[in-house]
Amino acid sequence: MLTEVAIPNGMEVTVLDHTDPPCPAAQVGARQMIGNLGDADLISKLASGARVTTWEIEHVNAEALIAQVELGRDVQPSPYTLKILQNKLSQKKFLDKAGIPVPSYREIKSSSDLEKAVEELGPVIVKRQTGGYDGLGNLALNSANWEEIDKFSEGAGIYAEKALELKTELSVIMAVARSRRRVTYPVIETEQKDGICELAVAPARIPHTKALEATEIGQETVSLLHGAGVFAVEMFLTTDDEILVNEIAPRVHNSGHLTIEGHATSQFEQHIRAIMGLPLGPIDTLAPAAAMANIIGPRDGPVDMAGLRRILTHRDIHVHMYGKRTAPRRRKMGHLTVRAETADKAIELAITARKEISR
Amino acid sequence: MLTEVAIPNGMEVTVLDHTDPPCPAAQVGARQMIGNLGDADLISKLASGARVTTWEIEHVNAEALIAQVELGRDVQPSPYTLKILQNKLSQKKFLDKAGIPVPSYREIKSSSDLEKAVEELGPVIVKRQTGGYDGLGNLALNSANWEEIDKFSEGAGIYAEKALELKTELSVIMAVARSRRRVTYPVIETEQKDGICELAVAPARIPHTKALEATEIGQETVSLLHGAGVFAVEMFLTTDDEILVNEIAPRVHNSGHLTIEGHATSQFEQHIRAIMGLPLGPIDTLAPAAAMANIIGPRDGPVDMAGLRRILTHRDIHVHMYGKRTAPRRRKMGHLTVRAETADKAIELAITARKEISR
Repeated sequence: MLTEVAIPNGMEVTVLDHTDPPCPAAQVGARQMIGNLGDADLISKLASGARVTTWEIEHVNAEALIAQVELGRDVQPSPYTLKILQNKLSQKKFLDKAGIPVPSYREIKSSSDLEKAVEELGPVIVKRQTGGYDGLGNLALNSANWEEIDKFSEGAGIYAEKALELKTELSVIMAVARSRRRVTYPVIETEQKDGICELAVAPARIPHTKALEATEIGQETVSLLHGAGVFAVEMFLTTDDEILVNEIAPRVHNSGHLTIEGHATSQFEQHIRAIMGLPLGPIDTLAPAAAMANIIGPRDGPVDMAGLRRILTHRDIHVHMYGKRTAPRRRKMGHLTVRAETADKAIELAITARKEISR
Repeated sequence: MLTEVAIPNGMEVTVLDHTDPPCPAAQVGARQMIGNLGDADLISKLASGARVTTWEIEHVNAEALIAQVELGRDVQPSPYTLKILQNKLSQKKFLDKAGIPVPSYREIKSSSDLEKAVEELGPVIVKRQTGGYDGLGNLALNSANWEEIDKFSEGAGIYAEKALELKTELSVIMAVARSRRRVTYPVIETEQKDGICELAVAPARIPHTKALEATEIGQETVSLLHGAGVFAVEMFLTTDDEILVNEIAPRVHNSGHLTIEGHATSQFEQHIRAIMGLPLGPIDTLAPAAAMANIIGPRDGPVDMAGLRRILTHRDIHVHMYGKRTAPRRRKMGHLTVRAETADKAIELAITARKEISR
């Protein structure tokens, strides 16, 4: 979706992607360099040929990107910031130290650490410090079962976080220009299932004061980060009406896909503008509400035309299939966005539409 | 721009284009078949491998497309309709016979025909019956100068049309589904210079009654045509407040580029939906007004970043560069669209923006 913005704006895109060509970006006109996001040589080759280098997934070799910056190459946002955020425990400490509200957490190095954490925090979620994605690095735990933890961590660092009762989850998406000028989209409400974002809707169905609070926390958080680009701050709204930062995504974010149809400038266009040193765009809403539903695999090949035909009879529904060739379990294969008069109506239509297309 | 819609909707696109690969459509993910739009063998190859075949320029081999239909292949809209429209004189007769208001015209086969036409109509515009594009097939004439005409026509058929004094030009864009359901966009006002569309703005700055009249004429015109897809009806609004049909474009139209940012569903998405047998989308406006300015060559290579930076400081401006490798004189290299509170403001911003990018 970044490529879809860049090319009509007269830019050229090269993407590093390990999947069989053409990868999704190559299908919409990017040149594909085949290889792994951890490969420092390929990252060097990519960055040396580019005016600016960026990422759209944080599991990329941050050290290699830092090396490029030290060679004078332009990488946005800052890979130093990326490096802090990649380790979720260091991210948590970083936020905590800056006074950003986060769930209570404990570093876990031994079974006694875990016992102590459960004693102090009650039920916890154990998380891998690195490499987690779409909930795959998390494990809910009611008691201190070290054996289970040991198997889960696979030797990687872990930490425990107090399990919270949630009203909902929120996402605040901001674009930061090189000038440090910043725009903040209205708060988005997200619905997760098994750690994967299933639905997003804007505006979030929360009281106005809570939306303001979330926005302020998001802005305070992003002011700690370096470099230009789009950032998403994922938050919990607890049953006690507390807002806590869950995680920072230093990149365009799944919850922000609804900005394509929902706002005058999408998160993807903002990211391209930001990293290219262009001014940010206006974020006026194009409809009272917009909702996004992920289309989750396994699912392969072209879209189900019969399903597409049925959902397009509903009004103002937009489908984005990513053209992924392989469809592992629980993989995001595409998404759809609905514009409607209210958030409730938008989300209802989005769910109906997804059912039709995913049959 | 059709490809940009089709691919994220899970479709595959192959385009016949004679320019060096990658042609503009290939740059955004289409497969390119290299060759001429007149080549019957290539058209057969294209159509035999496609679920549906369409065009986005009318200078295509209509006979070859008709042959494909007769082989049972799906071509939309109807190439029989295309064939009538390709010859502008037969188009004019077709419209005239159906009672659609058109400028007075005369077929010209000899110098005496021309003399008689000038005598009866006054100043005329002589037009080539076929192959005209962006005003290149037209010649204004104050007197019956046969020598000039003979040189102009290059042996092709010509006709003369009464030269009119115009208030403005209008464009009514409609999408027709296979079910014959039809949606009509609000009337667009266009500004031509030397026969090339320079600017378009919606809503047209004309009285409401005139807009209704134009819409009705457009709908009546399109009801005469066969097949699914987007059609544009270009019209003159004369200083006598008369609306006359200038020309039918049986395809997505330059004046409709503003529907990408101006409406809930763009003309490109409507065309894809229509030819694929999908329901048409809603056409709600996304802003009170939208204006489009063509970026006209000669101009090559990536967009002027300094200019882009300047224009993006204005609000809600969207640039579409087509990635054309060659830039002949007066070639459309891209366009930009502005959303604004009024048509006047939109057009003013569009002109300013174009100046910046075309420096």
